[in-house]
Amino acid sequence: MAGSEFEKHERNTVRRQASRGKYDRETVFGILDEAFLCHVGFSVEGQPFVIPTLYARDGETIFIHGSSISRMLKNLSEGLRACVTVTITDGIVLARSAFHHSMNYRSVTIFGQGALVEDENEKVRALEVISENVLPGRWADSRGPTKKELDVTSVIAIRIEDAAAKIREGGPKDDKRDYELPIWAGVVPIVQMPLEPVADALLPEGIEVPDYIKKLYE
Amino acid sequence: MAGSEFEKHERNTVRRQASRGKYDRETVFGILDEAFLCHVGFSVEGQPFVIPTLYARDGETIFIHGSSISRMLKNLSEGLRACVTVTITDGIVLARSAFHHSMNYRSVTIFGQGALVEDENEKVRALEVISENVLPGRWADSRGPTKKELDVTSVIAIRIEDAAAKIREGGPKDDKRDYELPIWAGVVPIVQMPLEPVADALLPEGIEVPDYIKKLYE
Repeated sequence: MAGSEFEKHERNTVRRQASRGKYDRETVFGILDEAFLCHVGFSVEGQPFVIPTLYARDGETIFIHGSSISRMLKNLSEGLRACVTVTITDGIVLARSAFHHSMNYRSVTIFGQGALVEDENEKVRALEVISENVLPGRWADSRGPTKKELDVTSVIAIRIEDAAAKIREGGPKDDKRDYELPIWAGVVPIVQMPLEPVADALLPEGIEVPDYIKKLYE
Repeated sequence: MAGSEFEKHERNTVRRQASRGKYDRETVFGILDEAFLCHVGFSVEGQPFVIPTLYARDGETIFIHGSSISRMLKNLSEGLRACVTVTITDGIVLARSAFHHSMNYRSVTIFGQGALVEDENEKVRALEVISENVLPGRWADSRGPTKKELDVTSVIAIRIEDAAAKIREGGPKDDKRDYELPIWAGVVPIVQMPLEPVADALLPEGIEVPDYIKKLYE
């Protein structure tokens, strides 16, 4: 499956800059698996909402989670249509003309419907998948969820029905005549990166930063 | 106005972790002015869409722009209801229990309706405001838009009707009994930062990186 393409339908076809649209699972999943924050869109009685939240991909499904009293999760558990977008900012593209300025980015937009994950084992597995997508290695090193904690946590599974990636990369493209202008042009690359870990003030002495965190800085 | 609060209505009231909700303009505008990428949500015939795009705040208005054939801009220019969300990721919060893991972030959610900016001077000013929000100093240094370029560019103004910020900061909060566990706890701070600028391959020699770009690295 990983090499195949998502079908192009009305809602997931990239129209503007169509050449930037990608539909193969390798590209779509690659972007999804690199990030951990998504923006979930849904509409209640005509009012759109866009909520940032952690997520993880599990095969053809996106898991999100939160408190069982969350408005978003309640709405999604009722099968509302959702649009989930993940965006990685890669750089500011500086052309000679204001018009050709752009951004380098990789984004994925997913369309699907939410469903509440009710099976307890599946719920724990989903929480593990989300945790491991944020910081691989952390789940096994933390105190696992109790029955009570699981009861106040909701997990929503959104099966990916349609998806598309959109990618812009490389330098600026200017109009021919603008290349003569004495204006600096190029790219300011942008990265999201971790700074040195800050230990909790209440951490007893002698507990070292674990290797799976040190790995973030390699 | 900058010190006053957005009124709390149904759609912009933070319910989950209500203490993280902020409604004063200073906080809301501070977050909006720090970022340059937003996620715009709207719904067409019940189908939600979430699209990443550049933006800037101008007083009580958010400007976005793009090609005049863009589906999103066409939809928004017809006065569709929009939800615009901006999220700054500040860190991964590692508690002893999986349950208390969290993220440090600052987000703003805005509700309003789009309107096409038709006046040409206002359109150019909006483009300048967006450009300056991404990279202050760039607009004056780039070749300004021609009439033809303006004709194929749409600018949408979304007046902020309701807004709320949501902020999580600081270290993990664990259950009392978990503080005894020999598990590293703390925060991995996350920042978005620029790497060294990459000059366009076609840039003539002798054009130096301008000061307003060097400032990004101070």
